[in-house]
Amino acid sequence: MQNMQDETPLANNHISVDCVVIGFDKERLRVLLVKRTGEEAGDIYNDMKLPGSLIYEDEDLDEAAQRVLFELTGIKSVNLLQFKAFGSKNRTSNPKDVRWLERATKLKVERIVTVAYMAMVKIDRALSKSLEDYQACWIALEDVKTLAFDHNLIIKEALVYIRQFVEFNPSILFDLLPRKFTAAQLRILYELVYDKAMDVRNFHKKIAMMEYIIPLEERQKGVAHRAARYYKFDKKAYNKIRR
Amino acid sequence: MQNMQDETPLANNHISVDCVVIGFDKERLRVLLVKRTGEEAGDIYNDMKLPGSLIYEDEDLDEAAQRVLFELTGIKSVNLLQFKAFGSKNRTSNPKDVRWLERATKLKVERIVTVAYMAMVKIDRALSKSLEDYQACWIALEDVKTLAFDHNLIIKEALVYIRQFVEFNPSILFDLLPRKFTAAQLRILYELVYDKAMDVRNFHKKIAMMEYIIPLEERQKGVAHRAARYYKFDKKAYNKIRR
Repeated sequence: MQNMQDETPLANNHISVDCVVIGFDKERLRVLLVKRTGEEAGDIYNDMKLPGSLIYEDEDLDEAAQRVLFELTGIKSVNLLQFKAFGSKNRTSNPKDVRWLERATKLKVERIVTVAYMAMVKIDRALSKSLEDYQACWIALEDVKTLAFDHNLIIKEALVYIRQFVEFNPSILFDLLPRKFTAAQLRILYELVYDKAMDVRNFHKKIAMMEYIIPLEERQKGVAHRAARYYKFDKKAYNKIRR
Repeated sequence: MQNMQDETPLANNHISVDCVVIGFDKERLRVLLVKRTGEEAGDIYNDMKLPGSLIYEDEDLDEAAQRVLFELTGIKSVNLLQFKAFGSKNRTSNPKDVRWLERATKLKVERIVTVAYMAMVKIDRALSKSLEDYQACWIALEDVKTLAFDHNLIIKEALVYIRQFVEFNPSILFDLLPRKFTAAQLRILYELVYDKAMDVRNFHKKIAMMEYIIPLEERQKGVAHRAARYYKFDKKAYNKIRR
């Protein structure tokens, strides 16, 4: 700081937060996106973005992330984890994004450093119901098109972060699953997170070795073929092993 | 963003980067700090801070972190990892910090969001030599006094991050050790990182099981008691096991 040269201009920055909320619909990972409507050369366009916003004067980063998620999607009490700040000059290299933002905020925008948060949630009926009142929806990861700003990159980095996090703390995977799940659902989830196929038989052996995955007496109902057994995650057994 | 209320003022923020560089002197963890000189009510004071600076208009966050570390400590080519953004309003709650910063930057300062980076390095002769020309020094963690801004908190969070990182990727511990190290040095490092004592005999068993820690024929020289064996870290063996 002492050596700061007067001739080098400091950045005129804004700070935002963006939330990557990941869910699992028993087959695919989905990300929560909000609709964006803008105008370019007199034409209205619609595309999508992550739930995000510039921060207010009176709020901390964590508070801003919770507020934004609630305002744009109606979701609250979600465990949002900060995972990375994005501050490249290229974030605002698309004039379309800058025009949209300047219209929305009535501010002159140069660079925006965004602090990205992620959460993993169960896509259940209650949650989906609450989204109906908002311009928010769950998009399967492989169906995500070009998003505003660098939001495609932010999602990609969130998945890298999740993979590392699962390695250290596999219990977060069970935040994505329903209370009762089949071995196939758990395997698909592992395959999606690690982005590689897993051998079905080996995976069954793996489950048998995880003492915190408890087989239930209950089986799937109304399925055409052999009904699969349900399992549940035993948080207490997990915490005992991990200590 | 669409719902942004006009009456809620946006934050007037500056963005900085701060670097937590951690070293190990074979007995204690040390952090690299730079001296700060300020003036309060006509009196000159000296205290310390992390190497850090506001970012320039033309640089990315990662570039800013590398530049700052080099400008303030002469260190370059260090693997700096971004680990957390700090944006609490309380960061600038001490008027002394605000006055110092406004004098140094000639800017009106409200909130500063800082993006914190960390690196783990070997404290060797070459590195210590390069610090001599700067107002930078290695301070043992337990000797760190009250630092500028929230820099004590940032160091604390860096240690939490390192602990998680080591769990996932223990090889980074060997970035801190000399090329040849004793079992005792490795144990002390583990104890410091995990902040708990480890049984000496169990630790020797643990080492014997880590195929990437190779015992050497060489032993310590010029020690009063039984000379300890040296070990080395075998990166290739480590990568093979972790794949």
